[in-house]
Amino acid sequence: MTQVNEGAVDLVQAIRGDMVESVHRGHAVICDGTGAVVEAWGNPAAMIYPRSSCKMVQALPLLESGAGRDLTTAQLALACASHQGQAEHTDAVAAWLSDLGLGEADLRCGAHMPYSEVARDGLIKTDESPCQLHNNCSGKHAGFLTLSQHLGGGPDYVEPDHPVQIAVRRAFEEVTGMESPGYGIDGCSAPNFATRLDGLGRAMGLFAAARAGRGARQDAMAKLAQAMGAEPLLVAGDGRACTDLMRAMDGKVAVKTGAEAVFVAIIPELDRGIALKIVDGETRAAEATIAALLVRLGVLSAEAPVAKRLMHGPITNCRSKVTGHYEVTLD
Amino acid sequence: MTQVNEGAVDLVQAIRGDMVESVHRGHAVICDGTGAVVEAWGNPAAMIYPRSSCKMVQALPLLESGAGRDLTTAQLALACASHQGQAEHTDAVAAWLSDLGLGEADLRCGAHMPYSEVARDGLIKTDESPCQLHNNCSGKHAGFLTLSQHLGGGPDYVEPDHPVQIAVRRAFEEVTGMESPGYGIDGCSAPNFATRLDGLGRAMGLFAAARAGRGARQDAMAKLAQAMGAEPLLVAGDGRACTDLMRAMDGKVAVKTGAEAVFVAIIPELDRGIALKIVDGETRAAEATIAALLVRLGVLSAEAPVAKRLMHGPITNCRSKVTGHYEVTLD
Repeated sequence: MTQVNEGAVDLVQAIRGDMVESVHRGHAVICDGTGAVVEAWGNPAAMIYPRSSCKMVQALPLLESGAGRDLTTAQLALACASHQGQAEHTDAVAAWLSDLGLGEADLRCGAHMPYSEVARDGLIKTDESPCQLHNNCSGKHAGFLTLSQHLGGGPDYVEPDHPVQIAVRRAFEEVTGMESPGYGIDGCSAPNFATRLDGLGRAMGLFAAARAGRGARQDAMAKLAQAMGAEPLLVAGDGRACTDLMRAMDGKVAVKTGAEAVFVAIIPELDRGIALKIVDGETRAAEATIAALLVRLGVLSAEAPVAKRLMHGPITNCRSKVTGHYEVTLD
Repeated sequence: MTQVNEGAVDLVQAIRGDMVESVHRGHAVICDGTGAVVEAWGNPAAMIYPRSSCKMVQALPLLESGAGRDLTTAQLALACASHQGQAEHTDAVAAWLSDLGLGEADLRCGAHMPYSEVARDGLIKTDESPCQLHNNCSGKHAGFLTLSQHLGGGPDYVEPDHPVQIAVRRAFEEVTGMESPGYGIDGCSAPNFATRLDGLGRAMGLFAAARAGRGARQDAMAKLAQAMGAEPLLVAGDGRACTDLMRAMDGKVAVKTGAEAVFVAIIPELDRGIALKIVDGETRAAEATIAALLVRLGVLSAEAPVAKRLMHGPITNCRSKVTGHYEVTLD
């Protein structure tokens, strides 16, 4: 098993004044529609946890089982989301749970303060605590509950031996093309299966090449990627990298971040998938690198404000002075 | 000039389940009372910005000039602080400015939301914006203003050619033992002079060996290190690494964090100084490493809650389940 830092290469520099202040190493792969690696930086064999970057994989059994047959595009986007707990997110998840005859207490994701400043400030002003709906994974968990009802599973759907997670693991191993060596427990209490970076890249390549009408798996893949691109706000939120990147690409590309600096992209128009991991887990570097790769592949304009912001900054200070910038090195 | 990532070594692992999820590299030096390196990890020649870790160096001219003759221990601690904007911090800085016949508008640090959740929530509840007093550097800036008055300098005391910053640069180069190759502008708008990691370590060794009654420089060094240890709350705030570490060591050791993962320690009882930089700029790794080095030198108990927390975690999730831990490798 190749440890995450083996063979990593420098990808992002944070520069202050005219000197490099910090450096981020990582790995990235671009895979074609068969899942084969066509371009790589660092070590494609690096073993990683995809974290939230693989939510569209975790949602495959929801559709393939037929449990999610009647879900809307918005609900499918939420199932793949790491949302920031804006009203648009929490209201939609609450309505979904209600449709199932369930409520917030049936979630098993736990609560955290919403990433949305507006939502956070609203809670603080009224002395309220966040609830499980605010958890960035609550849409994924609504999907898990939908599948669990369909399968007749018990209430603790995040347990690794629950039918929901057994189905997730099977789908995950099929699309990554390898047996997972094990799992870690994610922030939202669901198991997160480890894989090689090129396994995650393979999965993204298969999503990119999936077309409706070619069987249940490709139907599900195409529908999920399309839903993410169609509802960029629901996948993350105003001002967040995933939302801004998908908007800048007119929803033609689905992108997804994961904790500890994982990022993926699904590019159907090119039959290409991307997966990357920054070794130190720093999100700023994962965001800079995915933007640079999307620009390199020609699907994101280098002049798009989100591309400039993520790839270059600038880094500013408390008086809005420019103190530095980022540089991504792919060559 | 040796770039920050050259020769770095793995120092901290973030582990989830039983697999390494992320890895941080860095450099560390331990210096004796003459400033000589006695132990090193990675590359002592790595060129860094010390950021806020060198605030006690930036405060030297305040005392050596006589400008700070009448300052209290609390004020000296604030001059070296990256405080979190609790009332204890902002009230003290406001009173200090008032003593000078100045006010908040004379600061040049800019405003940011206080790191203290209590202070932040208080502002949000009353729809107030943070002011410059909340800036974590406002105590350092009150010190700059005190020196500026003494020197008859103009109001823009953060300009690199202002008498205050000229005095700071001279002191910085003397204690680091090298000419600085240049500066970056810090978050608070003051110039932050670059140096080699072993230059910063040298400075910390000299601080550790300084004793009152051996000239103005050693008087100033001893007084500042003592003030930091005597007022740990003022140097950072409740729950923060610097405050908790200094409390756990009964104020006998002065420690200070800097942005982008720099950390230093001054250990007078051993005549030892420490300086470290994590290449990727991630604070969790700098905190883990400084705790491990203090334990290694025998001045921090490995059983102290703050030592366990910073060195090992645990990493927990939204339902307070343990999902992982940190490991520091110094061998």
